[in-house]
Amino acid sequence: MEPNALAPMAEQLFADLRRLGSDGVGITRDSYGDGENAAASYLTQWAERQGLSVARDRAANLVFTLPEDSGDAPATWIGSHLDSVPQGGNYDGLAGIVAGLLCLVEQRRRERPTSTPVRVLALRGEESAWFGRAYMGSGALFGKLSEADLAMPHRTHGRALGECMAEAGADIEAIRAGETLFDVSRAKAWLELHIEQGPVMIARNMPVAIVPGIRGNVRHNRVSCVGEAGHSGAVPRWLRHDAMFAVADLITRLDEHWRALLERGIDMVVTTGIVGTDPAEHAISRIPGKVDFSLEVRSQSPDTLDVFYELMRTECRAIERDRGVRFVFDRRLASAPAIMDRHVSSVLEDVCGSLDLPKERVPSGAGHDAAIFANAGIPSGMVFVRNANGSHNPAEHMELDDFMRGVRVIEAATHRL
Amino acid sequence: MEPNALAPMAEQLFADLRRLGSDGVGITRDSYGDGENAAASYLTQWAERQGLSVARDRAANLVFTLPEDSGDAPATWIGSHLDSVPQGGNYDGLAGIVAGLLCLVEQRRRERPTSTPVRVLALRGEESAWFGRAYMGSGALFGKLSEADLAMPHRTHGRALGECMAEAGADIEAIRAGETLFDVSRAKAWLELHIEQGPVMIARNMPVAIVPGIRGNVRHNRVSCVGEAGHSGAVPRWLRHDAMFAVADLITRLDEHWRALLERGIDMVVTTGIVGTDPAEHAISRIPGKVDFSLEVRSQSPDTLDVFYELMRTECRAIERDRGVRFVFDRRLASAPAIMDRHVSSVLEDVCGSLDLPKERVPSGAGHDAAIFANAGIPSGMVFVRNANGSHNPAEHMELDDFMRGVRVIEAATHRL
Repeated sequence: MEPNALAPMAEQLFADLRRLGSDGVGITRDSYGDGENAAASYLTQWAERQGLSVARDRAANLVFTLPEDSGDAPATWIGSHLDSVPQGGNYDGLAGIVAGLLCLVEQRRRERPTSTPVRVLALRGEESAWFGRAYMGSGALFGKLSEADLAMPHRTHGRALGECMAEAGADIEAIRAGETLFDVSRAKAWLELHIEQGPVMIARNMPVAIVPGIRGNVRHNRVSCVGEAGHSGAVPRWLRHDAMFAVADLITRLDEHWRALLERGIDMVVTTGIVGTDPAEHAISRIPGKVDFSLEVRSQSPDTLDVFYELMRTECRAIERDRGVRFVFDRRLASAPAIMDRHVSSVLEDVCGSLDLPKERVPSGAGHDAAIFANAGIPSGMVFVRNANGSHNPAEHMELDDFMRGVRVIEAATHRL
Repeated sequence: MEPNALAPMAEQLFADLRRLGSDGVGITRDSYGDGENAAASYLTQWAERQGLSVARDRAANLVFTLPEDSGDAPATWIGSHLDSVPQGGNYDGLAGIVAGLLCLVEQRRRERPTSTPVRVLALRGEESAWFGRAYMGSGALFGKLSEADLAMPHRTHGRALGECMAEAGADIEAIRAGETLFDVSRAKAWLELHIEQGPVMIARNMPVAIVPGIRGNVRHNRVSCVGEAGHSGAVPRWLRHDAMFAVADLITRLDEHWRALLERGIDMVVTTGIVGTDPAEHAISRIPGKVDFSLEVRSQSPDTLDVFYELMRTECRAIERDRGVRFVFDRRLASAPAIMDRHVSSVLEDVCGSLDLPKERVPSGAGHDAAIFANAGIPSGMVFVRNANGSHNPAEHMELDDFMRGVRVIEAATHRL
């Protein structure tokens, strides 16, 4: 691949999709909603103009292929997700799709097809921000969406995930029945390019890196701490059951455990992304009777996830006794950590070497669709591209040069897999 | 006064106003809004049926008098507030108005007027839940509402306090100019009956009690903790600026200081009634970049308020350094503690003695309009009535017998003041 020959095309795609997904603050491409649909339509038209074939799989994801690809031979699949968090950035997910599309365009322009065909998958619904469930588009392909998952309500309009998937064109009966909708025998490998969502590559000056594994997580979308409302001025401390002070106590205890575990070299992060007193009844002069919060723990180690989770439940019981409150948990959700394929990763490393790029390995703190493909038995590999200011926020920033380096790694690997 | 002769009338009034103010969960009588207006209309019609005169003062509060009262002589004023918090209880405020009305009805029925006329004031806008400002109706009478107060937006529809007061019929130009709209020379005393909003009287088995003083407070309606949003999986602890963990840290530190101060016998309470991550951008998998919260400290001692406030600001600075966040404070609001009049309180005590009620004193943890009248130089007294399950919640519960005991204390006092 000619260095940066396709850079203007990438730049145009990112600019157009940024304009299309802008919400005034950041990028909003809501899963199975208007934002995601708009990006899907745009990419479909764009790909057809480039002479690519576009189809939809039974989970309503987009599949891009060369027109001469009959679909019968096992392929190298390249892809990532179309959706974003609310007020997120432009590159989270989209970069991996654009990378795949550039590989197809490159083959078509140079009439230099790979021996193993390349197919590109633009997955829907990776972000948990919308329905409280991550990997919806890839999970649907492998029968991983339960009845309870499909019943989860959208964060704003409240309609169920299953209903929204059906509306987007997914075969909801097959998904509900847990059918496998992706033919594993037609996949030699899964490759995913993604921006790094942490600060490590900026700090250590790496333009690209190979991802050896992906953190799993355990989470509750909603824990309710139930105390007792009361007049803020009139109830002395010893008679209070303040739900907010109880939740603050829990967070502080978890923070202390986290710090202690990090000192022992254990990999984990813990986040309470959504916390709030009840808008229907809270007031400045009222002791909060109820606080809802989300809780998420991530680690590359399943043992750490289990141990920290139990520690959290123990602390909740202690706080219940100390403060006369109750913690009520919704369904425990979990994603297993995933290890990338050793052979695919070594091919990616060799390619980095031949392209004069550093052969660095950076484990992924965030979850990715690649974990679903890897755990389904498909040899998978991931390439991270350096990105400033983190992710899931409008300030996310990837340099086009770094992106094109990542594209060259992926493209070169397709010739060797 | 005949024991409980007027109990059926009180029962009817409470039942009718409960029905009128019900929101399906509790009682909502929004300040300068539909709920408060409905209660005002009902009481006006009811009082006129009882042969009482009803007028509105220049702050749109209701004034009930005997028809023969020319208004010239100094009076004993009895009153409390019409409004409630959202999903509050039926007796908070209303009980004091009903108590006053029963005193007037008693005089009219028995043709046994007091030598000092009794006038009853149903105040609007005591609860800070609606505009973030307490004592609006009484404060307006004494020129206590600043331009900033009048600009405060309603918690849901966002319209300014001044606009809503004007709509309710208040002389907003006079209020804006800080005029005194209550003739202090026409007030010999202010008496307020109120349910206890704490658990002390239930625990100590007191049907009624005399209030020697009212806690003041210092508060911020909104403090913003500003950190940095980021992907929950990908940012390690040492690079995080998690606004929620910072707020939890602050609350936990304040809770520890509070506990230490209580051990030294210092009177105070601290509450964060409204806390939340930003619904426009929060997500389960996003590190909270911003958390807003309210903060309120109450104490009978102005020194304690000042000292604890400074302690809070110091802890904020420490957390800013530790966690790389910023705390942004809105306007500091304060209400001074108020001492009830020694003579009025001793009359109330004597009356309790002659009615065979215990002569107990219970300081008020909650603020009351009586504080405004007391601080305006009007000799003021308060009677608490026992109330179960706290206040500012739908489970608030006052026994009618206890209420009638309180009414007899107030009524007897009007003959001795």
